[in-house]
Parts: sequence; structure tokens; C-alpha cells
Amino acid sequence: MRITVLFFALYSVLRKQSCNVKVYAPRLVAEGRARLRGRFSIETLLPSAGWVRRAWQPTEEDLYNSCGLDGVVFSRIFVFSLRVFSLAAIIGIFVLLPTGMVGGNELHEKLHVCSHLLDVSNQTPMEFVGRLWCHFSAAYIITGVMCYLLYAEYKYIAEKRIAYFNASKPQPQHFTVLVRDIPLHAGNSLSDTVEAFFTEYHPSDYLSHSVLITKRKLEKCSLVKVYRKLTHLKSTSSSSQNQNHSGFFGMFGKRVDLVRDYSKKLEDIEQNVRLVQSDSRRELKFFPAAFVSFKSRYGAAKALHIQQSVNPTEWVTEWAPEPRDVYWPFFSTSFMQRWISKLIVFVASVLLVILFLLVVAFVQSLTYLEELEALFPFLGKILKITVISQVVTGYLPSLILHLVAALVPPIVKLFSAMQGYVAVSQIEKSACKKMLLFTIWFLFFANVLTGSVTSEIEFLFDPKTIPSRLAVAVPAQVHICLHQINDIGRSFYAQESIRFSRLHFSLLMWHCCRRKDDKFEIPSIPYYSEIPRILLFVLLGLTYFLLAPMILPFILVFFCIGYIIYRNQLLDVYQPKYDTGGRFWPVVHNSTIFSLVLMHIIAVGIFGVKKLPVAAILIVPLPVLTLLFNDYCRKRFLPVFRKFSAEVCSYFARSIAFFYWPFFSWIPASHCYSECRLSWQTAPYHLATAPGCLL
Amino acid sequence: MRITVLFFALYSVLRKQSCNVKVYAPRLVAEGRARLRGRFSIETLLPSAGWVRRAWQPTEEDLYNSCGLDGVVFSRIFVFSLRVFSLAAIIGIFVLLPTGMVGGNELHEKLHVCSHLLDVSNQTPMEFVGRLWCHFSAAYIITGVMCYLLYAEYKYIAEKRIAYFNASKPQPQHFTVLVRDIPLHAGNSLSDTVEAFFTEYHPSDYLSHSVLITKRKLEKCSLVKVYRKLTHLKSTSSSSQNQNHSGFFGMFGKRVDLVRDYSKKLEDIEQNVRLVQSDSRRELKFFPAAFVSFKSRYGAAKALHIQQSVNPTEWVTEWAPEPRDVYWPFFSTSFMQRWISKLIVFVASVLLVILFLLVVAFVQSLTYLEELEALFPFLGKILKITVISQVVTGYLPSLILHLVAALVPPIVKLFSAMQGYVAVSQIEKSACKKMLLFTIWFLFFANVLTGSVTSEIEFLFDPKTIPSRLAVAVPAQVHICLHQINDIGRSFYAQESIRFSRLHFSLLMWHCCRRKDDKFEIPSIPYYSEIPRILLFVLLGLTYFLLAPMILPFILVFFCIGYIIYRNQLLDVYQPKYDTGGRFWPVVHNSTIFSLVLMHIIAVGIFGVKKLPVAAILIVPLPVLTLLFNDYCRKRFLPVFRKFSAEVCSYFARSIAFFYWPFFSWIPASHCYSECRLSWQTAPYHLATAPGCLL
Repeated sequence: MRITVLFFALYSVLRKQSCNVKVYAPRLVAEGRARLRGRFSIETLLPSAGWVRRAWQPTEEDLYNSCGLDGVVFSRIFVFSLRVFSLAAIIGIFVLLPTGMVGGNELHEKLHVCSHLLDVSNQTPMEFVGRLWCHFSAAYIITGVMCYLLYAEYKYIAEKRIAYFNASKPQPQHFTVLVRDIPLHAGNSLSDTVEAFFTEYHPSDYLSHSVLITKRKLEKCSLVKVYRKLTHLKSTSSSSQNQNHSGFFGMFGKRVDLVRDYSKKLEDIEQNVRLVQSDSRRELKFFPAAFVSFKSRYGAAKALHIQQSVNPTEWVTEWAPEPRDVYWPFFSTSFMQRWISKLIVFVASVLLVILFLLVVAFVQSLTYLEELEALFPFLGKILKITVISQVVTGYLPSLILHLVAALVPPIVKLFSAMQGYVAVSQIEKSACKKMLLFTIWFLFFANVLTGSVTSEIEFLFDPKTIPSRLAVAVPAQVHICLHQINDIGRSFYAQESIRFSRLHFSLLMWHCCRRKDDKFEIPSIPYYSEIPRILLFVLLGLTYFLLAPMILPFILVFFCIGYIIYRNQLLDVYQPKYDTGGRFWPVVHNSTIFSLVLMHIIAVGIFGVKKLPVAAILIVPLPVLTLLFNDYCRKRFLPVFRKFSAEVCSYFARSIAFFYWPFFSWIPASHCYSECRLSWQTAPYHLATAPGCLL
Repeated sequence: MRITVLFFALYSVLRKQSCNVKVYAPRLVAEGRARLRGRFSIETLLPSAGWVRRAWQPTEEDLYNSCGLDGVVFSRIFVFSLRVFSLAAIIGIFVLLPTGMVGGNELHEKLHVCSHLLDVSNQTPMEFVGRLWCHFSAAYIITGVMCYLLYAEYKYIAEKRIAYFNASKPQPQHFTVLVRDIPLHAGNSLSDTVEAFFTEYHPSDYLSHSVLITKRKLEKCSLVKVYRKLTHLKSTSSSSQNQNHSGFFGMFGKRVDLVRDYSKKLEDIEQNVRLVQSDSRRELKFFPAAFVSFKSRYGAAKALHIQQSVNPTEWVTEWAPEPRDVYWPFFSTSFMQRWISKLIVFVASVLLVILFLLVVAFVQSLTYLEELEALFPFLGKILKITVISQVVTGYLPSLILHLVAALVPPIVKLFSAMQGYVAVSQIEKSACKKMLLFTIWFLFFANVLTGSVTSEIEFLFDPKTIPSRLAVAVPAQVHICLHQINDIGRSFYAQESIRFSRLHFSLLMWHCCRRKDDKFEIPSIPYYSEIPRILLFVLLGLTYFLLAPMILPFILVFFCIGYIIYRNQLLDVYQPKYDTGGRFWPVVHNSTIFSLVLMHIIAVGIFGVKKLPVAAILIVPLPVLTLLFNDYCRKRFLPVFRKFSAEVCSYFARSIAFFYWPFFSWIPASHCYSECRLSWQTAPYHLATAPGCLL
């Protein structure tokens, strides 16, 4: 607790320093809402809670305007968790805990008492039946309330999503379909093939298309780089900043006007590209893929949902991603290639799991010094030193796990990218699911089921014993779990709010090179690694709800702090790089259902271990009902997150006349491109797309 | 073998008797291609093989014209199985059997020898390695060949399906979509709501619609009955037959002209219906469901594939079934109702499985007389009589199992019907999948894994031991399996070809009532019960391929006879009641893949039991590769069987002008209906549809 307060104080002081403004409010800086230089006063050195108020105040509407629906969904996870765990904490502490209270005030004892609550041996039958009913009703009540809240939340977000879609201005991606696996016929050019196909099968809806081509890497890179630089320079207000020393690290050499310099470079490259285009079109490599645009959003939806070709592996369609969201590096136009890369990613993920299990097993062996000594006898003397042995047993395991855990998100993201998705949002959604599996598996199962790698794998192949094994293992690990909540929660929030790595980098740049980092980028929130972490706490809270309700207040505190910190970060620090329109919610929903069912399985296991078959059988309807509820939700709400209905698309079709312009300004991207009209509307799509989009 | 020949002879004699022609060639009678009365000659009493030639001769094209694509698919199952098992038999008998041959000529010994082929104890290492390689290569070769053939077959049938769709005349169901769960708004009539919705969201494609209403049961039934009678009477040529005695069983009373009689009845009822329609329309109960027709097949496909409403449980669309294929009794318009009935059916199926398991357990206990005596002491004396004990242990179990197994298909079909499908073809396809599970589970697992009910259920919950348990259990049951092939195969073909029940009924009618059964119905082939039986033999053949190759010739004989008999039945006896366009093939494909994987699992188990871990590990890639192959086929071919592509639909759109008429003659069904133009094109749809289709 003291450390948490300390962090908050440190953060409030650090963020007041004007030199750190790019670290703590890069978004405000980019939007011109932050003072870059303030007067120095003693006030800036005193911790204050003003930022908490500022993070608390904005309504959901503000959050929506600022971060899109994904930001709202992210904050709804906290709201939902707070609601659930407030009730759970009340039930746990005022009902479950007293029934199991035997004596002693210390947390340590309480936790132990709770896990032995249902020990029949030293209770009278009547007492026991009462307690049984308490736990029973608690399990049923919390499941009922959670299902109700999950339903309400799913409904709310689905409605928000539809409203968001109805309210959004027409955007190019709503009218465009990405077509891959176009079969090539000798004699016909790719562009002609595409045009002939869509003119034939979608005569009334088809508008135009852009075939994808590869460009020379050098040109593309330099073009993008120069363009970004130019945009940034133009956006900063004072022209004095746009002059810099040329030469080593900008420290020596004559001053030059950066804007003019970059403009000239850009023009040169554009000229070059145009020459390449006109002269050596035949040298360009065409991809058998194209962006096909339709006259209406409804037309695009129709073309998307119907299978195009007789052969389902040809003319494969999907929604075109947002222009800013495109990700080319692993773009593949072959169905087989995508299928094989998915298989490879699956195998690689399994290997990663095994590797990680080995690391965890090694780390666990560290806590038993005797085993380590037996393995490496030469370490015997060193490990006898108290400090070293303390470090090795106490700090080293945690450190190694943290380091390795920090490596997992980028690897998982890479895996998802290799699966051939064409948009960052799709990659991150897939990575989010993978991370969820990893997080739950390692931070929950691998911690709870301490043992060898093989025994953990065997666990999966022996479904009968799962409830009883969990029932024995989970209560035994209450302490580790509590430690984890404190440890992970604290380090993770500290890392998140204070942004150490970024702060170091900023200070380093400031002190060593004496230059401000011009090209500071506004980070985007990595939903794929944050959401699983939060959901892990939902899982912990639910699984320990019956066994050790004393954990719940800690989890409540975690969510309260998280709510404030993340709102602050969403509003001040991160800028969304894409907008999935709340597509992360189904992942959250499914994971919560999994947590609920796990809670039920553990409950069955406990009653089984305590030799109470009646109680175990009476719990069984609960997971069945939960899964039925989930099935209903899948049927009722999931389609809203997967595809747009005729109603939604048509709603838009009526208003298209008023908003038609941005659509048209985007479609003939090649036209804009060749005439160098690199407006903000059209250029990013075009430049971000490595194998560009040329007609 | 002798019994088989006897059956064939009996069949050839029976089918030559002109009095049996309605039993053995009802289809030919209905199509007017059979002689109802021939001259009596001695030739008709001599068995001949002419019918075999006649069944063999027709090409696939003839079969297609006669039974549609489903008939072709059905006969392809035999062709495919014959190809696979010819190769398997060659490998098995000429390669696998000699390597395991120790001595003795009798089948009994051979079977035993084969199952102990891989017993390491009495073999030198070199000998053993050679044998291992033989089994290995055999497993890999047969898997490779099967996958190749499966791929070729899937491709062939998918192409046939597309060709069939392209060649078919425009049919009402291709233009029509069944819409359920129409939300009702107070004030608007259902018909207006439907029209408003589709005019708004599908303005260019929408043509018309028919709302479903309930009719009074009495009228409906009598109308359908009278109409059928009339159609049949009109179709029979000789007018003399259309006169009959009125009175008890047609034996007494004056002769009346049946056609005139029924025509009058029909007119009365129609008049009645028209009155009801015009006077008390408000009293009719409207279902919130409608058939919506579109201007083109493509328009219907587009409307089908896009989700209509924002709420995915409203305006649920599916293809309208063929008019002759509609099945109303369990028609439901509520999404929730369908969901709940699916759940109920699932629970009922599980209960049925448990019930059947209990029956099997009881039957197995019959073979151990001591147990039975211990259970029912009063039976002691009776069971001491040799004849009774022989009957009880030898014949009774088989009889009970046959009787119970005969009860399963209708129950399963009822379950599938209760799930809320609207077409008989959908119900039968669903029933086919269920029957497949039942057949495989009971005739394979429950026979192989003899034991108590709980031990069989435990088997499922202990996945680790599955291979080794199968490896031990399967070879031990070679005899039972062989017995089964003979027993089931023979009884089933005899039943199928000689059609005992039908023959008895016909003879009974002939002798007791002395009247010909006028209203004889041409049966339709029950694919849902036949296909699983045939696939069971594929399963048996594959699982015993490595263990007891001597079984393979028997299976080959089974498929040869089956091929001839079913072709004969398809051409002469059965008339298809629906045409799914080959949609049963994916079921066959999946089941074959399952059989292959089961073979691999058993192979792994055998090598595991014989303590040959290297061999067991080397087999593991085989099921993985097979499942990958299956996944590829799912992606490549399955969509062709699920939905029609833009190319296919548009192909048709071009030719619509020439074939437009039957479409229009169907669409305003209510119009036809009210004007009593009960043509063959429109009426059956209309009359078969219990809650009729009225505008």
C-alpha cells in the first residue's frame, strides 16, 4: 500500500515537469493541448492528485470521442469487473468469511481458515449443512449476477457498435473489399481480369479497383520516411525549430531549412517513381490481389458475403482494412501459403509453450536450493552466502519470469502477423487471444500446478482428475496468488504509468545528445497484451472467490487503480492507431465465461475432495447453464461483431449522398498519387501500404 | 456363401412373379414401364441372373437421370470402397498375411495368427524389423491411396454438383428464401411488414412473398388425401380400375366412378376453404414466417447470405426447401423455440445412448448363463433345458439387438425432425449424422469394448489409454466382427432386396381382402439409415486392415453384392422424394477420415502394447497428416456443398429468360390455389405444406 502511494506521488511529480511532457502526455503535445514549457515553481515539485480528478472526470462520451469504441470497451472491462467484484467482496467478506471464521485476526490465518472452510471433521452436521448452503448460494448468486451483467454489457456494447457504425462518416474501408487469390489467365492482364469478373457478377454495385504491385524497396522506404518528416515539420508551429545543424548528430555543420530540404527530397523521389511507373510498368511485379470498391456500403457487404468463385480458394474476399491499419510485411496472396503459415504458427506456438514450460520448471527449481546444489555441485559454496541465496531464491525467479514474460507479447504478435492478416487490428486481436491462452496457462495453471513439464501435460490428458487436482492445488497456492496480485499489479501499473523505458530514453537523449527528439511518436495502446493481464485478475478473483474471499479486496483495489491509470493513459498518452469498433469485447466475454466455468469446476472438485457427492452434483447444473447462456450470447450478439447487417448497411446507403466526397477522394488513390496530391485523406493509406496500391 | 446364392435365386424367382411386381418394381409400375400381368410360363419359376445384368448395365448418367445426384453419390460410396478395399485386400493377403504366416490353413488360425503378428517374443530381431517395415509401409500406402481417392472423389462430386446446378431448370426453391422470426409491430399486418422490409432493403431483387398461415386441420387433411387419390386415379390408364364397390372393404355395394366421386369431394372442400378464406381471414392464425421470392437466383443468394436485421435472431433466412420436400409438423418460427428444442434433442439423444447401452449390457449378460441364473434364480430350471439355453445364449442376444437396432432409425429421425428443420432432406441429413454416431458407437465400440456401461463411459474420459485399450480389444474381437459382417450383411441385403415386410403385406392384402392395394406408394430410399450401415463396413475394413487382413475379402464381397443390389433398388424400387444435390458426400468423407484416424490410433496402440515406442512414434505423423488433408478438403470443397457462389448463380441468371415460366407458375401459389388450378407444378408444394402458403 505504501509503495502504491509512493508511486502515485512520484508520478504526479514527474508528470508536472515540463521536460517530461512528451513522455507523460505525448498525445496532448501532438494535439497542441499541452504547454511545452511552463514556468518553474515550487508547486511542480509537490505531489498532487489533480491528474486523478482529470482522469476521473471525462464521461464515456469523451472517451469515445477521444479513443474510439475500443477505448470505451477497454474501460468497460474495469467497470464490469468493479461491479462484479464489489458484490463478490461483500458476499465473500460478510457472508463466507464469518461462516469459516474460527479465530485469529491475521490475514495469514484468515486465508488458511478459508481454504479449510469445508473441513467436515471438526464440525457438527448442522453447522456443516449451513455452511454448505452458504457456499452454494454464493456460487449460484455470483454466477447469476455475472451472467446478467455480461448480458447487459454485451448488449450495451453491441448497441454502441451499431450506433457507432451508423454515426460514422463514410470511410473508404466500408466500400472496399480486398480480393486475394485472383486466378491468372495467360493473355489477360490482372487488372482486366478483375474488372471483367466484377463487371460480370456485380454489375450494379462495382465501382473501381486497384491492383497491388510491389515497388522497389528503397524508393518506398525513403518516400514514407521523407513524407512523415515533412508532415511533422509542417505541423509544428514555430519555423525556428525547423532549422537544424547538418552533420554528425546534428551538432556540427551549417543550418538548413528542414521543410524546404525535405520537400525537395520528396519531389525528387516522386519524380523518380513517376518515371518508373511510366517507363517500366512491365518490370513491376503484380500481386494477384486487388482492392475492389463498390458504389455503396451495401454493395460491398453483398459482394463480401457471397462466395465469388466456384472454387472457394479463388477470389477470396474480406473487408479492406482502414488505410492507417494496413500491414504488408507478411501479406500473402496465395490460399495455400496462408494455410501453411497458419500451421507453422500453430507448431511454433506449441514449441513456445514447451520452451516457456521449461523455463518455468527451471525457475521453480531455483526456489529449492538443495536441488540446485545437487545439480551443480560447484555452486555449493557460493550459495552458502546468505545474500546470494536470498537473491537466488527470492528475487531471481521473479526476475527471470518477468523478463521472459516480457518477451512473450512481441513473439506472439509476430506469430499472429505471420498468419497472413492484412491489418494490424486483426493481428492484435489474434495476438490477444493467443496471449490470453498463454497468460491463463502460465500465470494460473503453471503456478498452481507446480510440477514437472510432463505432469502438467499429463494433467490435460486426464480430464477426470482435473476438478480434484485443481481443488487440491488452488487453495494451497493462495499465498503465491496474493503475492502475484501485489507483484504483478504494482510493477505493471508502475511500468504503465511512469513509463520507465520511455523516461530513460528521453533523459538519455536530453543529456547525451542535447537535442530534443523531434520524431517522437505517439504510442498506441497495446490492447493485445493489456487485456489478457486484466482478465487474469478476473480469473484469479473468481477462482478464489469461494476459497479465499480475503483476496477480493485486493483485486478490487487493483481494478480501482487500473481504472484511473488507464483512463489517464487513454486520454493523455495513447492515440489509437486503428478502430475495430469494439471487437475485443467477445474475447473478454469468452474469457470471463471460462473463468466462471473454472470456478464451478473447482467447486465440484472441492466438494468431491471433501467427500460430499450431493454438493458436487448440485453444482454441476451451474457450468451447464453458464455454457448455455454463453451459447445464447454467441447466437444473439456475436454476429453483430462479425458482420454488418442489411439494416445497418442500408441505413447508411440513405445518407451517402451527403458524405460522398471523402469516398471519392480516396478511391482513385493512384490518381492522387501520380498528381502528388498527398493530402492527409489519401496519402497515409497509400504510403503505409508497402506494395502500394496502384491502378 | 450358400445362403447368399440361395437368396439371390429366391429373389430372382420372386421378382419374376407378376403379382409381386408392385413389391419389386413399384417405380417401374408407377412410370408405366412394367408389365402388370404377364403370361405364366415355366421360365418364371427358374432363377436367373438377368436382373443382375440389368442392374449392372446402366451408366452413371442413367443413374443420375433416374435418381438425381444423391443416387449417384450413394453408388459412388460403393465404387470408392471397392477401389480402396481391392488394393487393401491385395496388400493384406499377399504382403501382410505371408509375413505373419506360421502354418495352418484354416481361416480360424489365420485370423489368430494375424492378430499376433507383431508378437516380438518368438521372432528374431531381423525378422521382426522386416515385418515392422511391412506393416508400416502398408499403413502409409493405404493412407496415401485413400487420401488420393477421397480427394478425387470429393472433386468429382463437387464438379458434378456444380454441373447439376448449372444444368437444372429454374426451380422455385432457387428463387425463394424462407424467412422466420419476423418481428411483429402492432398496427401493421404481417404481410405489410414483410413487404416493407424487403422493398426497403432489397429493392432491386425483391419480387413477392407468401405469409404462412394455419388452416383447420380437418380441411387440410381431407384436402391432401382427396387430392392424392385423385392424382393417382387420373394417372392410372384403364378406367375400369377406377370403379369400385362401395361398402365394407370394397366387397359389397354398388360400383361408383371413383374419379367423379373424388373430384366432387375436392370441389366441395375447395369451396369450403375459399369461404373460410374470404369470410374469416381474421380468424386464421398467421405465423411470423414467410416465403420471400426474388427476381433472380443471384438476388435470393445475396439476400440469404447477408444478415438481415441488426438483431441476428430476427429475420432469420434460409433457402426455401423443394416444394415436395417440405415438412411442417415441427415447424417453428421462434428462434428461442428452435434453440431450446435443439437442446432437448441433444439431451434425449444422450438418454437414448444410455438406454441402448443398458440394453447392450443386458444382452451381453445373456451370453453368460451363470450370471443370469444368479440374477434370476427362478430361471435356473428352465435354462437347464438345452434348447432353451442355446436359444438364449445364441439366438436371443442377436434378435434383441436387431430389434432394438431397427427401432433406432425412426427414433433418430424423429429427434432430427424435432430440431425444427423445415425439409425432409435436412432432417434426413441430420439423422444420417446421428445414425453414424450411433452405429459406430454401438456396433463398433460397444461390441469391441465389452464391459459395463460405466467402463465404456470411463473409456471416453481417459484419452491416454484409448490407443492401448483399442489395441488390446480390437484383435480379440475378430470373430465377433467377422460374424457381424456375415450376419448384418446378409440379413440386411436380404431385407433390402426381398422386402419381406412389403411382400407379406402385399400377400395379406391379396388373400384376405381380395383387392389390389390401389394406393400403393413408391418408397423413397432412406439414405439416413443406409449410408451409416455401409460406412460401418468401411470402418471395420480399415480398423482390421493391419490386424486381420483375412477380413478384407469378405468386406469386398459385401461391397460387390451391395453395389448390384442397390443399383437395382435405385432403378426399380425407390423414387427419390427430394434432391439434395449430393450433400451426403461430406458426411461420407468425414466418416472415412474418422475411420482412417481410428486405424492409426489402433496402430499406435499395437506398437505401444508390443513395447515398440519407435514404431509408435513413427506412426504419429500419419493421423496428423490425414487431419491436415481433411482440413484442406474442408476449405477446398465443403463450401461448394454449403452455398452457391456468385459464378454459379450468375451462370443461371443469364439463362433465366428462357426458363422463366415454371417460376412464375409457382410463385403466386395462392393464386393457383384459389383458382383451383391444382397442376402438378404448384399443388404438391401447396398441399404438402400443412400450415399452407397463402398470400
